[in-house]
Amino acid sequence: MAQLIEPRTLRGFRDYIPSLMLPRERVLETARRVYRSYGFAPIDTPALEYAEVLLGKGGEESDRLVYRFKDHGDRDVALRFDLTVPFARFSAQYLPKLGTPFKRYAMGPVWRGENTSAGRYREFWQCDFDTIGTTANAADVEVVLVISDLFSALEIPNVQIRVNNRLVLSGLLEHLGLADKTVPLLRSLDKLPKIGPEKVAEEMVREAGVSADGAKDVLALAQMAGSNTSVLDQVEAAFGSNPKVVEGIRRLREMLAVTTAVGVPEGRIKIDLSIARGLDYYTGSIYETFLNDLPAIGSVCSGGRYDNLASLYTKQVLPGVGASLGVDRLLAAMEELEHPWLTGQSTPADVLIIQFTAEKLSEYHRVAKDLRAAGISCEVYPEAKKPKAQFEYADKRGFRLALIAGPDELAKGVWKVKNLAKREESLVGLEDVVTAVKMAIRI
Amino acid sequence: MAQLIEPRTLRGFRDYIPSLMLPRERVLETARRVYRSYGFAPIDTPALEYAEVLLGKGGEESDRLVYRFKDHGDRDVALRFDLTVPFARFSAQYLPKLGTPFKRYAMGPVWRGENTSAGRYREFWQCDFDTIGTTANAADVEVVLVISDLFSALEIPNVQIRVNNRLVLSGLLEHLGLADKTVPLLRSLDKLPKIGPEKVAEEMVREAGVSADGAKDVLALAQMAGSNTSVLDQVEAAFGSNPKVVEGIRRLREMLAVTTAVGVPEGRIKIDLSIARGLDYYTGSIYETFLNDLPAIGSVCSGGRYDNLASLYTKQVLPGVGASLGVDRLLAAMEELEHPWLTGQSTPADVLIIQFTAEKLSEYHRVAKDLRAAGISCEVYPEAKKPKAQFEYADKRGFRLALIAGPDELAKGVWKVKNLAKREESLVGLEDVVTAVKMAIRI
Repeated sequence: MAQLIEPRTLRGFRDYIPSLMLPRERVLETARRVYRSYGFAPIDTPALEYAEVLLGKGGEESDRLVYRFKDHGDRDVALRFDLTVPFARFSAQYLPKLGTPFKRYAMGPVWRGENTSAGRYREFWQCDFDTIGTTANAADVEVVLVISDLFSALEIPNVQIRVNNRLVLSGLLEHLGLADKTVPLLRSLDKLPKIGPEKVAEEMVREAGVSADGAKDVLALAQMAGSNTSVLDQVEAAFGSNPKVVEGIRRLREMLAVTTAVGVPEGRIKIDLSIARGLDYYTGSIYETFLNDLPAIGSVCSGGRYDNLASLYTKQVLPGVGASLGVDRLLAAMEELEHPWLTGQSTPADVLIIQFTAEKLSEYHRVAKDLRAAGISCEVYPEAKKPKAQFEYADKRGFRLALIAGPDELAKGVWKVKNLAKREESLVGLEDVVTAVKMAIRI
Repeated sequence: MAQLIEPRTLRGFRDYIPSLMLPRERVLETARRVYRSYGFAPIDTPALEYAEVLLGKGGEESDRLVYRFKDHGDRDVALRFDLTVPFARFSAQYLPKLGTPFKRYAMGPVWRGENTSAGRYREFWQCDFDTIGTTANAADVEVVLVISDLFSALEIPNVQIRVNNRLVLSGLLEHLGLADKTVPLLRSLDKLPKIGPEKVAEEMVREAGVSADGAKDVLALAQMAGSNTSVLDQVEAAFGSNPKVVEGIRRLREMLAVTTAVGVPEGRIKIDLSIARGLDYYTGSIYETFLNDLPAIGSVCSGGRYDNLASLYTKQVLPGVGASLGVDRLLAAMEELEHPWLTGQSTPADVLIIQFTAEKLSEYHRVAKDLRAAGISCEVYPEAKKPKAQFEYADKRGFRLALIAGPDELAKGVWKVKNLAKREESLVGLEDVVTAVKMAIRI
């Protein structure tokens, strides 16, 4: 006999067993439902693409994290490392025909050969939605509405969506004559939560070569505190002579007005002028989403507005705005927060029908069929094992109810409905089984 | 400015635009719902695994079709080429803890560097379900029930599920003293639909070295015609002295009895003793599913029973039975058959809310929110463009209704509901918009 091969996965990759996969599917289904409810349409692109398409012409040494190899035809290919680059390529290819505005969502795994020591995975799911082809603020406002609805639907209402608009900072820097220092200033500003304002100011002076007063103004903007309205009022008072600042504030005010009008809960949205994700990619709105019960895990849904999605592939200018749900990080947080969706159940079915005797398989399947027709998932145990073994299986998998009928009960047309958690059972007529099960699992 | 990169995909890979992705998601959602209704639980495994795990120890030259390369850590890795091998590895690793019977489904892309000339894709989706850890016929019977429910749910009722049990042929070959010729005989038999019985008989004599009488008996079995019951009766009369034949017939009879009892439509199941998928993998039940309106496309859902899933990785014997839905082939067939799910629509939303003026964005989003709360997907057009442009967009995407209200209408609290297909419109009060939309899209 040949030697056995060790069954193992690559470091940084993982299997999803049912008790973890069931909540993951529920998260994905929920995101899909919410995205669709706003008219975002699904697209899909291949996992494998030309390396040139994913990495650009200068990609030879650019990204050691990318899984890249020669295929059978000696083509230089790579696995996608996000869903944005393939979407940019897709947009260049199809939007001339499909037209804009184009609203899409995409969900799927991406691959990065990252260091796994920080608990990072090399294969993880992204779940993006974007509106392309418009600069209108309505699209930016909608992103906040989608995120808010998404977390309500995920039964995680206690979130804070932090919003900024890069125009405010750009305008300020323009006003201060520091527009050419944007990148190093943003790099320093990103460190604010970690190293504090004094060190950030020092670094701004040292690295970006701005004056101490300039650094002070930038920090003052990032640290403006108070209610959303008060922050915007302060900025307007201090820097409202610059047209970019004015436009940034107008956009943020409109976002607040609309979200309030449609009833987004008070406190869920927080203007935070310090967030500056992605040094030069985002140009307008910026979004981050924190779980108030677990802020340390970082943003679980982030995004922003960008000026031009597909400039690598087309001359068509495609501005857009969107965000991405970090599914794996969110699931880790849900686990830590003991979210009710992580039940430990490892079956999607509520009901196990005990197979008392193989001769009555038809009877068991007839009841199963009636339950399924009523929308209730159920399993007929595949063997006529001793009931004890079948009940142990039911407990292990997490079924909520068992239905039991031996030849005597079947002859009488009665079924035993056993509530496995409560250890209660009742006897009902065949015609009442569906109703009894419905009542038992709704409770 | 840098030169543009040509936006293109690799040969054999394809993008899904919304009008194709919406039906694909619907097919996958339907399969998921049906699998779950029987208690199959989802699992997922990585796309990338150790080449040794996917290909076995002797895999060095075994499969030129597999995408295989060295990763950053110089590990010999490969992209999965089906969902069965990873499931075997998974089973060896987790089933000692998760226990059996274990019912799982898995859905995802797989990759094969195949010749694309036959219209084959190098990335395609599989959609498998299996019950592992039992030899009981109840699991085999259930596979037919799942397939039958699946095609009903897919709104493709006109299918024929062809069923065989390999035990019948094995028993016959044992009876004829030809057990050691099984593989070449099956190989010949597989050609029956293509080259006809005479040439198959010649080949059996020539390649397998059986007598002309032996070949005649094997062919007689494969060609037995008539009703399901009649075929089984004939086999029993002719070869019923062999215990394997008897067991095969018993299992097929039980399958017919249960499926009839639960109301699987007459004619949907056809005993076909000629099907012999996978020369030595399947050992019991065999399933193929043909679309009666397009049989030439081949089987769209196939599977069978196997003796031992994970023997490469573990000494634990894991018999199982299952089947796999060929999603891409099915979608191609649905396109050809003009299936009602392929609507050409490229939005998941039914309703477009025209943005008459940006100043009233809150009003538009308030109505949108009410519609979403009622389960109706809707989109607020992101810019206050001319209504004509917005209607053109609505037509292009395939929205069914448009809701229109300018400042005057909003002041009066009325909305225009426009049925875009019928070119009809009506005026309703704000409080009746949801009801009016519901009525319009249900019709």
